[in-house]
Amino acid sequence: MTKPESKTSGIALVTGKPANVSEELVINGSNADSTHHAMAPATPTKPKSAKQVSRDNFSRRNTETEVFDDGTNTFFWRAHTVTVLFILTCVLVYVTLLEETPQDTTYNTKRGIVASILVFLCFGVTQAKDGPFTRPHPAYWRFWLCVSVVYELFLIFVLFQTVHDGRQFMKSIDPKLGVPLPERDYGGNCLIYDPGNTTDPWHNIWDKMDGFVPAHFLGWYIKTLVIRDWWMCMIISVMFEFLEYSLEHQLPNFSECWWDHWIMDVLVCNGLGIYAGMKTLGWLSMKPYQWQGLWNIPTYKGKIKRIAFQFTPYSWVKFEWKPASNLRRWLAVLGIIFMFLLAELNTFYLKFVLWMPPEHYLVLLRLVFFVNVGGVAMREIYDFMDDPKFYRKLGQQAWMVAAITVTEFLIVVKYDPKTIMLPIPFFVTQCWILGILLIFSWTLWRFFIRDITLRYKDARRRKQEVTGDSDRPHGNGSPATPSGRSKLNGSSESLRHRKS
Amino acid sequence: MTKPESKTSGIALVTGKPANVSEELVINGSNADSTHHAMAPATPTKPKSAKQVSRDNFSRRNTETEVFDDGTNTFFWRAHTVTVLFILTCVLVYVTLLEETPQDTTYNTKRGIVASILVFLCFGVTQAKDGPFTRPHPAYWRFWLCVSVVYELFLIFVLFQTVHDGRQFMKSIDPKLGVPLPERDYGGNCLIYDPGNTTDPWHNIWDKMDGFVPAHFLGWYIKTLVIRDWWMCMIISVMFEFLEYSLEHQLPNFSECWWDHWIMDVLVCNGLGIYAGMKTLGWLSMKPYQWQGLWNIPTYKGKIKRIAFQFTPYSWVKFEWKPASNLRRWLAVLGIIFMFLLAELNTFYLKFVLWMPPEHYLVLLRLVFFVNVGGVAMREIYDFMDDPKFYRKLGQQAWMVAAITVTEFLIVVKYDPKTIMLPIPFFVTQCWILGILLIFSWTLWRFFIRDITLRYKDARRRKQEVTGDSDRPHGNGSPATPSGRSKLNGSSESLRHRKS
Repeated sequence: MTKPESKTSGIALVTGKPANVSEELVINGSNADSTHHAMAPATPTKPKSAKQVSRDNFSRRNTETEVFDDGTNTFFWRAHTVTVLFILTCVLVYVTLLEETPQDTTYNTKRGIVASILVFLCFGVTQAKDGPFTRPHPAYWRFWLCVSVVYELFLIFVLFQTVHDGRQFMKSIDPKLGVPLPERDYGGNCLIYDPGNTTDPWHNIWDKMDGFVPAHFLGWYIKTLVIRDWWMCMIISVMFEFLEYSLEHQLPNFSECWWDHWIMDVLVCNGLGIYAGMKTLGWLSMKPYQWQGLWNIPTYKGKIKRIAFQFTPYSWVKFEWKPASNLRRWLAVLGIIFMFLLAELNTFYLKFVLWMPPEHYLVLLRLVFFVNVGGVAMREIYDFMDDPKFYRKLGQQAWMVAAITVTEFLIVVKYDPKTIMLPIPFFVTQCWILGILLIFSWTLWRFFIRDITLRYKDARRRKQEVTGDSDRPHGNGSPATPSGRSKLNGSSESLRHRKS
Repeated sequence: MTKPESKTSGIALVTGKPANVSEELVINGSNADSTHHAMAPATPTKPKSAKQVSRDNFSRRNTETEVFDDGTNTFFWRAHTVTVLFILTCVLVYVTLLEETPQDTTYNTKRGIVASILVFLCFGVTQAKDGPFTRPHPAYWRFWLCVSVVYELFLIFVLFQTVHDGRQFMKSIDPKLGVPLPERDYGGNCLIYDPGNTTDPWHNIWDKMDGFVPAHFLGWYIKTLVIRDWWMCMIISVMFEFLEYSLEHQLPNFSECWWDHWIMDVLVCNGLGIYAGMKTLGWLSMKPYQWQGLWNIPTYKGKIKRIAFQFTPYSWVKFEWKPASNLRRWLAVLGIIFMFLLAELNTFYLKFVLWMPPEHYLVLLRLVFFVNVGGVAMREIYDFMDDPKFYRKLGQQAWMVAAITVTEFLIVVKYDPKTIMLPIPFFVTQCWILGILLIFSWTLWRFFIRDITLRYKDARRRKQEVTGDSDRPHGNGSPATPSGRSKLNGSSESLRHRKS
């Protein structure tokens, strides 16, 4: 990030006993630049150089990943590598030596695969690299990282099967799967007030009021916490409705009434979700992050509150996407929106091509999975975008989420190329071409033409100034030239500065 | 380590431009405690407190894992997370969308599994946690970590199959496998000079001079580099011959002539290997570790030399196992020797129970694998043993190697319980019981009885002293009591200090 929230991070850093902070960090395997720690809260108003910002970045990352409360190295925070290894060995001895091995090859194969996955999780949860999040516990996020690896490998396997085999392979997970989905009738009557129905003229609205309304609300609440930006959320929310319009000839369940699209979805469900999310974000960024060890809190009520707060983040980073600040950020933000929408579309298309009923528990599990990994991935992308030189690597979870989204899309393309290739209606194509052209020309104007124009004007004015100066008698004006020109100069300077 | 090699690490730290070191480290995502860096070479003679040692430890780990030469962030050292992701996507698109999918389910299944493994390696090599080694490149060690995960999962899968299925499963790796091994005749004529054979009375010796002699030599050369201790190597080498003697009733290829055991193996092959290994260790620990970036070396010859040195370690840590210093270290060293011998036995038993011919390439691959992961694992164990509070975690590679050794052993037990349970000859049992009793009683004496005795004697002497003092007129002796007693006191003090 170019500008870490000095206030929040300041509070987070001065928590407890400042003198011990660096010492604790060193002992805990962290690597605090202690001078900087001590300095940071004292000089929040100084303009920060690039190096200082990168150090800030660094110390932020540090405190978040390495610190554990006030240094109370309790059971909860200690690593249990040897314990896990010992328990794993005992379980393996019991299951493989003391239990009789069944003679059923298929059953054993399944059992072997499940056992491999469990051992992988054991290894990963204790040993995988930590990500940016520590609350409620780093192991929680390591667990989801491992789950994403397993899910990606599963997708790769499915991708390499024939369409028939792949769909039948789902039977080995749930015997009810692998059956074609029934055709459904969507769309229909779109009257908000239906005078034809005498018992309840509003029945069309009540029909839409099913479990998906709170699901949409909750979904957008979480998405807002993940993206942490009002504008990006609104754009994605509206764009998705456009996508539904554009693709309703491929997936019939995208076809909804106009008021379902714009009022129910965008305004009510998503809008309220985003509003609630933004409120929560405000609270999270204002909340003082003072972490006291559980055992040091005297009262019982305090302890309970502390345990509840364990499920809030360790500290908070406000995302400032600033898409227009330079070309790289602009392309990155476009890319993020694109991947986000692709992941959303995958939810519907993947169900469709793998013959998964919408109410199947695997569909829900996939969403729970994405909720957990999405936040980490977005934070890692933000960090990577913000200071690629410092972090050098795109975060592991972001890498995995990108790979998963791509693989899911490839499965959709491979399993049902016919649906994907259904010709898009002419009107829709026109709209999309127009939209893309607009974005393209804005990009061209903002990052290339505007800059050139400004530089050209700047050069011309300077030239004029030089000519005017030589015309005028010398020693006349003040050394500083406070004029409209310098203002423009300044803005062009700052523009160039921002772009460098 | 309790005592890092101050000379070597000092040189490593002052390399190039000391003023920039900490800055480079911070920029490169490392986290140098810069004050400490600057201090370390200046005060090498000061006795180090526990905290300082742990900091030393920490900075050592840091410089080794994070630094890259003189900060020249060349292509070779940069992370390529996004590039790898992009290439992976392209390959997946080509293989799954543009190539025709074969209709053969078995072939597709195998292909899917291989593809999953490759994707896992892609992820792991770019994103896995770095271990203690950096040369020739951290990605190299990440690769072997991932291989060890894949190997462990494969072992777990095999462990969960029935014996018949497991052996037949090997056919899917190599169709030639899954066939019972032919019975072999071992032992036989043990005369060094065979007068019965008129053409060449020394033929028994020449018969033994096969490819296994250089293999044994090379094996022990590498093992010495891994263990880095003359005594531990010798003990393991001799113990293994004892194990061969003890288990020759189970595995016939353990039965060798006495001179093959003691002269050919222990003295010639292993002995020379250990000797060469110790010489190399000496060179590695004396070698000045000055790393200059490749592009900064002017001459062509210098560049070549620099490239060759890339395959030597970044810096060197002498292992000082000190098994007798306290009970924990003693038990840890016993455990390491035990696991080492178990892994060596697994080599032979696993071949036997999975029907692998000794010359099969998988057997060789397994050894290559162990050579690569063994060094990392041993270093991680050493670090863990030396300062468990600081590292907190048993290293990931050590964890994996332990899990693999245990799983291999479980496979052996499950696949051929009969062989394992063959009754051990009475004489052999007696020897082992004697040996274990000796170790047990030494442990008891060294870490319990000796300490109690010393303390008792100490207390009695103090009492005598007090009595003597009260008998003697006051103000007579000097305040410091320089006597044989205080010397013993001191030794008992230092003993207690070492134990704490």
